[in-house]
Amino acid sequence: MAIITIATDFGTADGYTGAVKGVIKSLAPNCEIVDITNELTTIPKAAIALYRYSACFPDGTVHLIIIDPTVGAGRRALAGSDSRYYYVGPDNGVFSMLTWNRRSVDWYNIQEDRLPPREISATFHGRDIFGPAAAMISIGHRPEEFGDKTNDPVMIEIPKARKSGDLIAGEIIDIDSFGNLITNIQGGMLSGNYKVMLEGEKVPLGRTFAHVPLGSPITYIGSLGFLEIGVNKGRADIYFKAIIGSKVRVES
Amino acid sequence: MAIITIATDFGTADGYTGAVKGVIKSLAPNCEIVDITNELTTIPKAAIALYRYSACFPDGTVHLIIIDPTVGAGRRALAGSDSRYYYVGPDNGVFSMLTWNRRSVDWYNIQEDRLPPREISATFHGRDIFGPAAAMISIGHRPEEFGDKTNDPVMIEIPKARKSGDLIAGEIIDIDSFGNLITNIQGGMLSGNYKVMLEGEKVPLGRTFAHVPLGSPITYIGSLGFLEIGVNKGRADIYFKAIIGSKVRVES
Amino acid sequence: MAIITIATDFGTADGYTGAVKGVIKSLAPNCEIVDITNELTTIPKAAIALYRYSACFPDGTVHLIIIDPTVGAGRRALAGSDSRYYYVGPDNGVFSMLTWNRRSVDWYNIQEDRLPPREISATFHGRDIFGPAAAMISIGHRPEEFGDKTNDPVMIEIPKARKSGDLIAGEIIDIDSFGNLITNIQGGMLSGNYKVMLEGEKVPLGRTFAHVPLGSPITYIGSLGFLEIGVNKGRADIYFKAIIGSKVRVES
Repeated sequence: MAIITIATDFGTADGYTGAVKGVIKSLAPNCEIVDITNELTTIPKAAIALYRYSACFPDGTVHLIIIDPTVGAGRRALAGSDSRYYYVGPDNGVFSMLTWNRRSVDWYNIQEDRLPPREISATFHGRDIFGPAAAMISIGHRPEEFGDKTNDPVMIEIPKARKSGDLIAGEIIDIDSFGNLITNIQGGMLSGNYKVMLEGEKVPLGRTFAHVPLGSPITYIGSLGFLEIGVNKGRADIYFKAIIGSKVRVES
Repeated sequence: MAIITIATDFGTADGYTGAVKGVIKSLAPNCEIVDITNELTTIPKAAIALYRYSACFPDGTVHLIIIDPTVGAGRRALAGSDSRYYYVGPDNGVFSMLTWNRRSVDWYNIQEDRLPPREISATFHGRDIFGPAAAMISIGHRPEEFGDKTNDPVMIEIPKARKSGDLIAGEIIDIDSFGNLITNIQGGMLSGNYKVMLEGEKVPLGRTFAHVPLGSPITYIGSLGFLEIGVNKGRADIYFKAIIGSKVRVES
Repeated sequence: MAIITIATDFGTADGYTGAVKGVIKSLAPNCEIVDITNELTTIPKAAIALYRYSACFPDGTVHLIIIDPTVGAGRRALAGSDSRYYYVGPDNGVFSMLTWNRRSVDWYNIQEDRLPPREISATFHGRDIFGPAAAMISIGHRPEEFGDKTNDPVMIEIPKARKSGDLIAGEIIDIDSFGNLITNIQGGMLSGNYKVMLEGEKVPLGRTFAHVPLGSPITYIGSLGFLEIGVNKGRADIYFKAIIGSKVRVES
């Protein structure tokens, strides 16, 4: 029974995601829908969330992600696959982080007329295109059946940290719901003794926020494998007045 | 494996919907629960959401919807069926939009003593009546087993647009989480050239919000088949200071 | 097909719960995940929510609950079982209410090296320890396989009402999303005529909030079996300026 994960920015009160699920279950009665979220906010943050959960799933999972502010404006609809998963969503950069796993994804440009016939609205491709494509993949169809291969999916630049000598110049790329600051500095870049500066302020090193006093800041390798900055039972975003893009510097 | 969709106004933090799901899985271990929302707000808005998602599901789906401010006050509990689906919920108007699909629903007044025995609380019929009824239907029982037929379910008036000559007088009946304004003017009422006025202000026509500059308003046939008014990457409710009931006029 | 319920404080936007679900489905492809919430707020409130939904589920259900502010600080990870269910979560008191059902739970201290091998992060035991433990239980492993028995799980004191003669001294232990006030006075403690005082103000008795005028307060036996105080279509927390810990006194 194939799994389809669903992440959207639809909220739930209007029933939009419900409509997508209904279409999926109509086309693929035996698939298993796993809810991820209906609270996606920005495309970069959605790209990071997808990176966080997608690789935890069993091989063959179809990851459907819909944050689509330019629906109807001619942006392409993508279906893709790599060595483990399938992906379906709008061509707006939401898949940009997948390559950080060094995974190579083959992308195909979904053509409406290759999907089961239905009237296509101009504003709800989740129900009319993405949901049906994900459902069809879950029952055995392949992304390449839906359209031509494309080699230039939209990629948003999620900046990578740069190492030069003993210095690493990175930045905050995500702030999670607890206020933890996720940097773009991968754990593997770090070795020996080092110190971490966030916007010029030194942050103590540790294994986790529980290792410092209440309300104190700490930096550690987070669950995504990147350097993170947190505050024990507090919010690091507020503590540091940090935002996406705040500069982080590591000195060895 | 029968599907039961669940929409409530319970939120999730208290575990109320969890309790309903537990009761359902105890009575109908093989049913498939599909989450719609726990964030229903008003009965009219819930009625529109149900209209939006219900018909996307496969035949035989049981739609369970619980927004029940008058629980315990003697309002009836309904189970119903039409040619495709089953419905379970309180008799307070939440099913009022179903007839817009020209579907005829047979309604039955659920009697507590026709359900599997359990103590019935005065305040949580989702767990004690609606959930059990939905579960029993999903395993093959029919709504008519639960009580007498009723021909006067509560219907709330969701106003219909009126056409007279070249004019259509409609209004805003829903505002979605993106701030898009959904009117009660069905696409089929429109033909040829027309112009749309929202509270006296002309709104340009288009296929979707992506077709106007950022921050500009547009009107289009939305995914529900009704005329909608949106703002490209903005909120039409704020742009127009529109509310449920704001008047929309179409002139051909 | 074993059921695993999931309740967390992760929100959904970051994809943390998605990651937990992915790990679970990888280890236990046939389990059925039932979402409870991602909006747990405090440990006492989570304990009450667990009490509210857990016993509604079929025997054999695995209840996974993750609210874990001290992750990484050496707090133990627990897996337990009673005559009906399995439980997995942090040893911080979140299971404290289970004993109110007079259920006796056997607890075991989960050792990381008894779980399927994976790298264990310091900050995301939901994905790395609790999720895997729940998955393994759902496919037939027993809590005692994961570690030694522990007889001193952390218990938070959720105060019990005290009866002395004709008086019961209780307090508010939960406020639900509707603003209803849940006391710690169990229905079975009440008999005959009695009056209820909340912080010195008398609250009329009834079966449910629907039995008093709009905006009026009422006290009734709630769906959890405890005395509750509500306001018909209003919020009792606001009406009474009540908080967790506000005193309730019953005089017979």
